[in-house]
Amino acid sequence: MKATFDLEHKDGDARAGTVTTGRGTFSTPCFMPVGTRGAVKHLSSKDLSELGAQVILGNTYHLMLRPGSDIVESLGGLGKFANWDGHTLTDSGGYQVFSLEPKISDEGAIFKSVYDGSKISLTPEGAVDTQIAIGADIQMVLDVCSALPSSDAVIREALDRTALWATRARSRFLGHPTASERLSQFGIVQGGIDLAMRAESAQRTVELDFDGYAVGGLSVGEHRTQWHEPLRAATDQLPADQPRYFMGLGDPAGIVDAVARGIDMFDCVLPTRLARHGTLLTSQGRMNLTRAEFAKSDDPIDPAYPDSPVAGWSRGYLRHLLQVKEPTAARLLTIHNLWWLLRFVDDMRTSITNGTFETFAAGVHEQWS
Amino acid sequence: MKATFDLEHKDGDARAGTVTTGRGTFSTPCFMPVGTRGAVKHLSSKDLSELGAQVILGNTYHLMLRPGSDIVESLGGLGKFANWDGHTLTDSGGYQVFSLEPKISDEGAIFKSVYDGSKISLTPEGAVDTQIAIGADIQMVLDVCSALPSSDAVIREALDRTALWATRARSRFLGHPTASERLSQFGIVQGGIDLAMRAESAQRTVELDFDGYAVGGLSVGEHRTQWHEPLRAATDQLPADQPRYFMGLGDPAGIVDAVARGIDMFDCVLPTRLARHGTLLTSQGRMNLTRAEFAKSDDPIDPAYPDSPVAGWSRGYLRHLLQVKEPTAARLLTIHNLWWLLRFVDDMRTSITNGTFETFAAGVHEQWS
Repeated sequence: MKATFDLEHKDGDARAGTVTTGRGTFSTPCFMPVGTRGAVKHLSSKDLSELGAQVILGNTYHLMLRPGSDIVESLGGLGKFANWDGHTLTDSGGYQVFSLEPKISDEGAIFKSVYDGSKISLTPEGAVDTQIAIGADIQMVLDVCSALPSSDAVIREALDRTALWATRARSRFLGHPTASERLSQFGIVQGGIDLAMRAESAQRTVELDFDGYAVGGLSVGEHRTQWHEPLRAATDQLPADQPRYFMGLGDPAGIVDAVARGIDMFDCVLPTRLARHGTLLTSQGRMNLTRAEFAKSDDPIDPAYPDSPVAGWSRGYLRHLLQVKEPTAARLLTIHNLWWLLRFVDDMRTSITNGTFETFAAGVHEQWS
Repeated sequence: MKATFDLEHKDGDARAGTVTTGRGTFSTPCFMPVGTRGAVKHLSSKDLSELGAQVILGNTYHLMLRPGSDIVESLGGLGKFANWDGHTLTDSGGYQVFSLEPKISDEGAIFKSVYDGSKISLTPEGAVDTQIAIGADIQMVLDVCSALPSSDAVIREALDRTALWATRARSRFLGHPTASERLSQFGIVQGGIDLAMRAESAQRTVELDFDGYAVGGLSVGEHRTQWHEPLRAATDQLPADQPRYFMGLGDPAGIVDAVARGIDMFDCVLPTRLARHGTLLTSQGRMNLTRAEFAKSDDPIDPAYPDSPVAGWSRGYLRHLLQVKEPTAARLLTIHNLWWLLRFVDDMRTSITNGTFETFAAGVHEQWS
């Protein structure tokens, strides 16, 4: 079903609002933690509720191979499977598959399973069927994402194939007897950093009347400032009353830049992956807790945030657990980073509501750019 | 300071009571989860509070090498270090050191660090000093634990050396300017499965007037029934008004057998280690969740316990997380096993209070022996 966006406040092009889906509502801007195989590493759905997460992402590629979409479906779909009452979203599986250098044709992609080496085919229709079985509230079409930089010809081919696949995916989704009553399907805009191709891709995607829209293929290696105008070229074409999602972006400076250009939703493995390696998001920027200077520190991770759920454990203790590879370290640091980023997004939302987004963004750039 | 035991109910020789230390009180029988390096794997002190744990064990061997007892001391001692308000207990380090086949003399043991290969010496006095620095509420003397079966000569040598070391450790502890005002030191009874040597070791340990008493060197490979009488020979000699601790025992049948012979405190890595490998403690006995039959199961781990903190997640979901090695699995299964065992000990305590311990123990044997 169509995911609607109700605007509460606008500050420049930054939007604070509410997205409504078949599941219910969530407020935006929104950061969605990534639960690759049906769980955010080291956390349970209870932890995610306590952190105030609203939407959890699952990776179709991984879930279709293990435990298999049929098992997720038989156990009630991704949300019930993970005992998670909030929203769920699945990618199409394409991003992981393309990293495996598959054989690609207009038909789809053929790749080898990392689990047992078996040959698997991923088509636009198959990605729809698999995601319907997995049953996330929001599913993504299979697209073709080019690395940057790429030649115009490569970007053009990816754009055209993405549009072709989007038509077939939309048709497959709408042809399912019940999916479109319960679930939402988002289209994906490609086009590299070429403004005209971004606008064209956005227009061709919007023509298919998706339930929401994502921008893909940006922040994939190019400098942050290089995607500002291409992003604007895309969002200018997207309907104002539907949610907009920037795929795979999770650094604070990037998030404010994208929100400034009308984006509502984000996901990224960055905060959780950094945490597992001992790097923390703090009011002073990134902090590598493995550094020897923290060995005897009795301070909490971020003294500026005494209300953090991990403020009770000292840097010295957490560093020790990291050094001896105790899994409790990865857990507590993951909680910190997600809490910090979710609070950051909440603060950003408040600044939009208060009409102080520009000041907020300037402060973020000073710290994080 | 002397740890006192206040008896609330006795059923046969099974005791339900309260232990008082410099930190405060905890009720017995008591199972103490093991936080080897300052954390129970995958859990934080907040989790342990929510589970109702009362005493957490730390391993001196690991903590003295990483982060070093000086760092634990400078960060306030083990409890404050781990942000844990309850009781803490450290072993002497001997158990781990002896597994490294060190050079042993009357002086002490010399071994190589597993971290960097450096030569380290562990003496009765050093074990006291290190544990005072680590600062757990209860510390253990350095003893010599023989494998079973061993010859009488080996058991005798271990007994005599344990007694010699206990004298030196007690003297060292009492000679410290403040330790004995805040902390409690427990002696350890050895003697293999020989009744006379067990009784002798207990008498010689009690003569040193420790703050509490442990029984070591039992349940180290011999059949469960083989340690019943030697344990009785030891506990018969121990003062009724001080706590008694059976080191390294964690299976339900063993726990009831030891409680039936007057033991109050237990520790074991078993419930947490089993959990990490997918084996659960349930009302139907041990259950290996990796079995294929659970792949599509929507049931909770133990349908008999809907109030388990992990009852919300299905066997199928948890099995999937185990199969793909998601750390969330180890966490949730660890919570289950500790919750289950702590509840088991609570139920046992209730049965002692109600005078139905014998029935309780019979039920446990039917399920677990």
